[in-house]
Amino acid sequence: MQTPDTRIPVAVLGATGMVGQRFVSLLEAHPWFRLAEVAASPRSAGRRYADAVVWSSPGAVPASAVDLVLAALDDELPRRLDSPLVFSALDTDLAREFEPLFARAGKLVVTNASALRMDPRVPLIVPEVNAAHLALMERWDDGPGAIIANPNCSTIGLALVLAPLAREFGVEAAHVVTLQALSGAGRPGVASLDALDNVVPYIPGEEDKLATEPGKILGRLAGDAGAPSIELHPLVVSAQCNRVAVRDGHTLCVSVRLGRQVSREAILAAWGGFRGDELLRGLPSAPELPVLYDDAPNAPQPLLHRDVGRGMTAVVGRLQPCAVLGWRFVALSHNTLRGAAGGALLCAELAVARGWRPRGSGAQALGRPALRVPDRVPR
Amino acid sequence: MQTPDTRIPVAVLGATGMVGQRFVSLLEAHPWFRLAEVAASPRSAGRRYADAVVWSSPGAVPASAVDLVLAALDDELPRRLDSPLVFSALDTDLAREFEPLFARAGKLVVTNASALRMDPRVPLIVPEVNAAHLALMERWDDGPGAIIANPNCSTIGLALVLAPLAREFGVEAAHVVTLQALSGAGRPGVASLDALDNVVPYIPGEEDKLATEPGKILGRLAGDAGAPSIELHPLVVSAQCNRVAVRDGHTLCVSVRLGRQVSREAILAAWGGFRGDELLRGLPSAPELPVLYDDAPNAPQPLLHRDVGRGMTAVVGRLQPCAVLGWRFVALSHNTLRGAAGGALLCAELAVARGWRPRGSGAQALGRPALRVPDRVPR
Amino acid sequence: MQTPDTRIPVAVLGATGMVGQRFVSLLEAHPWFRLAEVAASPRSAGRRYADAVVWSSPGAVPASAVDLVLAALDDELPRRLDSPLVFSALDTDLAREFEPLFARAGKLVVTNASALRMDPRVPLIVPEVNAAHLALMERWDDGPGAIIANPNCSTIGLALVLAPLAREFGVEAAHVVTLQALSGAGRPGVASLDALDNVVPYIPGEEDKLATEPGKILGRLAGDAGAPSIELHPLVVSAQCNRVAVRDGHTLCVSVRLGRQVSREAILAAWGGFRGDELLRGLPSAPELPVLYDDAPNAPQPLLHRDVGRGMTAVVGRLQPCAVLGWRFVALSHNTLRGAAGGALLCAELAVARGWRPRGSGAQALGRPALRVPDRVPR
Amino acid sequence: MQTPDTRIPVAVLGATGMVGQRFVSLLEAHPWFRLAEVAASPRSAGRRYADAVVWSSPGAVPASAVDLVLAALDDELPRRLDSPLVFSALDTDLAREFEPLFARAGKLVVTNASALRMDPRVPLIVPEVNAAHLALMERWDDGPGAIIANPNCSTIGLALVLAPLAREFGVEAAHVVTLQALSGAGRPGVASLDALDNVVPYIPGEEDKLATEPGKILGRLAGDAGAPSIELHPLVVSAQCNRVAVRDGHTLCVSVRLGRQVSREAILAAWGGFRGDELLRGLPSAPELPVLYDDAPNAPQPLLHRDVGRGMTAVVGRLQPCAVLGWRFVALSHNTLRGAAGGALLCAELAVARGWRPRGSGAQALGRPALRVPDRVPR
Repeated sequence: MQTPDTRIPVAVLGATGMVGQRFVSLLEAHPWFRLAEVAASPRSAGRRYADAVVWSSPGAVPASAVDLVLAALDDELPRRLDSPLVFSALDTDLAREFEPLFARAGKLVVTNASALRMDPRVPLIVPEVNAAHLALMERWDDGPGAIIANPNCSTIGLALVLAPLAREFGVEAAHVVTLQALSGAGRPGVASLDALDNVVPYIPGEEDKLATEPGKILGRLAGDAGAPSIELHPLVVSAQCNRVAVRDGHTLCVSVRLGRQVSREAILAAWGGFRGDELLRGLPSAPELPVLYDDAPNAPQPLLHRDVGRGMTAVVGRLQPCAVLGWRFVALSHNTLRGAAGGALLCAELAVARGWRPRGSGAQALGRPALRVPDRVPR
Repeated sequence: MQTPDTRIPVAVLGATGMVGQRFVSLLEAHPWFRLAEVAASPRSAGRRYADAVVWSSPGAVPASAVDLVLAALDDELPRRLDSPLVFSALDTDLAREFEPLFARAGKLVVTNASALRMDPRVPLIVPEVNAAHLALMERWDDGPGAIIANPNCSTIGLALVLAPLAREFGVEAAHVVTLQALSGAGRPGVASLDALDNVVPYIPGEEDKLATEPGKILGRLAGDAGAPSIELHPLVVSAQCNRVAVRDGHTLCVSVRLGRQVSREAILAAWGGFRGDELLRGLPSAPELPVLYDDAPNAPQPLLHRDVGRGMTAVVGRLQPCAVLGWRFVALSHNTLRGAAGGALLCAELAVARGWRPRGSGAQALGRPALRVPDRVPR
Repeated sequence: MQTPDTRIPVAVLGATGMVGQRFVSLLEAHPWFRLAEVAASPRSAGRRYADAVVWSSPGAVPASAVDLVLAALDDELPRRLDSPLVFSALDTDLAREFEPLFARAGKLVVTNASALRMDPRVPLIVPEVNAAHLALMERWDDGPGAIIANPNCSTIGLALVLAPLAREFGVEAAHVVTLQALSGAGRPGVASLDALDNVVPYIPGEEDKLATEPGKILGRLAGDAGAPSIELHPLVVSAQCNRVAVRDGHTLCVSVRLGRQVSREAILAAWGGFRGDELLRGLPSAPELPVLYDDAPNAPQPLLHRDVGRGMTAVVGRLQPCAVLGWRFVALSHNTLRGAAGGALLCAELAVARGWRPRGSGAQALGRPALRVPDRVPR
Repeated sequence: MQTPDTRIPVAVLGATGMVGQRFVSLLEAHPWFRLAEVAASPRSAGRRYADAVVWSSPGAVPASAVDLVLAALDDELPRRLDSPLVFSALDTDLAREFEPLFARAGKLVVTNASALRMDPRVPLIVPEVNAAHLALMERWDDGPGAIIANPNCSTIGLALVLAPLAREFGVEAAHVVTLQALSGAGRPGVASLDALDNVVPYIPGEEDKLATEPGKILGRLAGDAGAPSIELHPLVVSAQCNRVAVRDGHTLCVSVRLGRQVSREAILAAWGGFRGDELLRGLPSAPELPVLYDDAPNAPQPLLHRDVGRGMTAVVGRLQPCAVLGWRFVALSHNTLRGAAGGALLCAELAVARGWRPRGSGAQALGRPALRVPDRVPR
């Protein structure tokens, strides 16, 4: 006799794409969430997931997804879906059109798309950095739902390593050059003839995202509890983004001008002691360490470090004085785990930890007794 | 009946390594220089070049080199060599030990090694940038010879693109992140297991070279004609160097703080009008354009641009305002052509154009009638 | 004053794709043919070539093509085109539909497409192997034109190395495993996520082409001069085709059962002495050696050998006894030069050498006085 | 209070190399074996493992190995080692010299080296294929020890997929072309300049190993129990071996001439039903399925299939009629797991399952009660 599955049913939009596949993989055997529904463009609708997907991750299609029938993404879908929690791996244009419909229909949408990241109603969350911003999860045009956005895959790694520095010393400026992995472009994505024996110094829209998103993520929750808002952090970011022949793992060469003179030891201590909000302890997708410094002279490397903390830890190395800006270092984070599906899952887990529940359900739905549900907006 | 070969005989030290092979290739059919002697470590000495070399460039071993017998690099070699002009592709330690011996024996040594680049007796030359520094070619410890150094392979590209900006606007600071090709590490060099699906954010010694060499290259020739010296340029450079899975072509992501506010058009005009010293016109290895701006949004790329100007042109793209330092752009130059053997050949050609001659020879040795030989040190 | 350009004007169909670009590159400065017209799908029609093409070959768009305006590929095009000679880089379906229309309109079509290769009216030509098959160039459905097909890119290399063995010793069976380059799949072609750190053991349709085309190429010209036909060669071919992370150059691991016992020396002599039809001497695209054996233990390699003979020579190595079939070896040929555009050009040159002329023109159109025009079908 | 660790202590020779590292990783948390000693060349001796190793696998150095002090591989080592079971990752020459010394000193040596594979005293084991050959584990020159050899990394995959066919239908001949991964060459191994954008059609010694080892592995245990020997299987194998730019996973394109006419279904059934010796059930390193057929048209691929069965399953695909030999297919197996350290571990586990015990120990040492220990040599 089997105990009933009390996990929260979830839907994945854009489930056949690369980020969608990562969602499907990570949800297999998730302790709090159960993959219940998948949706894709109308031309795949009605097919079994295992038949429609071009599965391109190691291993087989997860058992929980094999027989799910793809729903069509259309205006009616928000009402047809049963799941109260929706992960979106939609392309930007579709995201902009459809995600608000799901929110208005009462869903909690956690999205990996860039469309609404800078929308003032949408919290842009890196859980260890700005959990408090979830206070922004107000009603969406008077509907009961909400949208939580996951930042750009490169921004997340940058935000993780800048946040401890911003908190301890202040950060005035950051100069970032990225060496980004191919999986970030999805599928078919970068043509092999452009990737082999080459670097492409251009990723459409990416440099702007890196310049603007950190200000919101590192910003201060302002306003009052009834009308919270984000006051942008004043740091200045300049980014140059390159595509390199790496499968997974974005490397960031970062130089920073901090708010004051600090020692090498102080910086290492800031990273080493960084844990983020207390609520994160024990969340299923939270890594033990959000930031890990590796002092090998040739660390971090995508091959060796992208899977640290099950792909959820940003690994830093090569901290050195920078004659131009003060300090420089190299950071690496996994772009489809921490930078996409894994980060979005952690956002949803954080929402639950802060008390979000599907309507009509109780905390026991999570199958964990001691979940601390805050009764007010923490700052 | 064949006309006698009046080209200047030259020797290549370290002729079997990767840069040595590039020298051998480029000297095949060179109009001014004739490959006459090759040298390598004593364990290869006495063997035919074609037998001793692990030829790893496209095409066959050049006919001019096939039957040359490798001389042993030892203390006697400087006296045994007949060639008045010596190209060195030696490793740093050997270079430091042996190159001065060749200079003292009266040879003109043009070296690709880093050992003596910052030595005040050695001009560090990018021909289009600081031809006048050849005035430093004084006698080496009272011997008749001299040493000319080729800068680091990444520094050369940087110097080419900074020089027009320094001249027109002043450059106060440059922040550089490199994505460097595998051929820069020679052979066996980077293990394939470190290169495939990876980035290595560390190249021993490279970041220091990029920080120090530009100051000398962009420096001002000072002192008087009898005792010339270089006054270092005060610009500050910070560099982060990465190895990526590219065969040839170093990509540099550069941000600069210029000496004054300038427009995008002014920068493009500075690059577009850059030609370098008048003496360079018509040198066999000189490209038509030392710097070429490509305004495609995804230029420059190693695959598409490394061979522009037969590998001697630095290609720039993606000029954009940088919120942190002022302007940013991406530059690309071929690391084993412009950045090594090709650059060294151009240095030697420049020396000839400025009047250097093997002792006992005349200008007619070059087979070109109209060579302008300056009768005094130009500034 | 410029002498008039008397070269034969030619058109390229599918001029913006990868093979189309190779045609455009190779026609730049071709001594006999002048690129006069380009055509592509209707959606590109009317645009300047330089604007419409995503140029992805080293160097810039050839000057001869920059300002050509793309014609639309439609039913009217065969009559609108002026050029008597048409190179086709069309996809299979378009080729099947349109190429016969051009032939009926009196054009000589030399095609790289697979659609009509096994059609009994179409000679399938590797010039050094079966020049005589051009006798098949009869009228196309009573029109004055004709179609010449270039074999599959892997088949060409195989045919070149098998032909001397078939002629000297007979070949009963060939077992081929290919390691094929990415450029063979065109653009976008293979996704980088499928190519990096991977092998794909499947190329749609390829194994069948390798199994069937050699029989026609190595076949005997039969019938009489008025109604020539090809008697298929009885050799049996089995092929397994893999895509590997190589840009250009198909590697073929071949094992053969010959018609009789032969020595290693005899095989090497067969390859070494292979030259093909006398008519090939001096054709602009003909390599000095169609087949070159390299006895280095690790030859041939794509990097080192794909450009031998300007990419028109098949390089062979590692000839060894095979315990199963008799002899085995490894062959390499450039898939977009010899295997596509270069091979097609050589076919057209051969047709000219055999006497084909645009209607209303004379041999002097070629700018070469001594072209031997056979007055009857050679066998 | 901790229960005492009753696992069998084992030593790893050549522990710092790539295969040595795989042994160390796989032994971390092995249920039967405990990594107790590590040895390497005298120049590393005396150093902590974590200090001496250039760890190049994902994750950190396993805790069980970090503080082990490297013993020097010398003539005295066999007597100094306490461990009764020794895994050897030595290079061939060292293996030939030292492994017999360990055997004479009473150790059970399981080796990945090729030196002694064809020695008539040494069983060459693929556990699912020829477990019975362990009967060859006689005394080594009258000493109490023994040597078990792991076949060549490519041979293992081939033997796994041929064994069911040999058993069911007979195999007369196999033609194999390999596309082998870079990790097979160890470290530094293949230079990146030879691997990127290239194929190297030569791996020293490899083609011979593939030609000879299958005959021994598929051979019949003959002689009597007191003097067992192997009667070689008469199949003929011809192999061509290539190195390709893949990290892990050898791809084998195989064509076979079977002993009789069989249907596709019969072949698939032979593979599907293949399990190997009953003793293998439940061995810690044994995969559920030794051979798995994947009927996707583009399977198997290194990226997608090398980790199937934790890297211990050979994945087969593309079964098709072969016009030359009868049937052809593509097989893939992980070269450093199944093909090296994982295969060796499984051999050792099999030896234990068949009753091998360290002197003075009992079955309970294994911590598993129901181990079936055969009391006579099974055939």
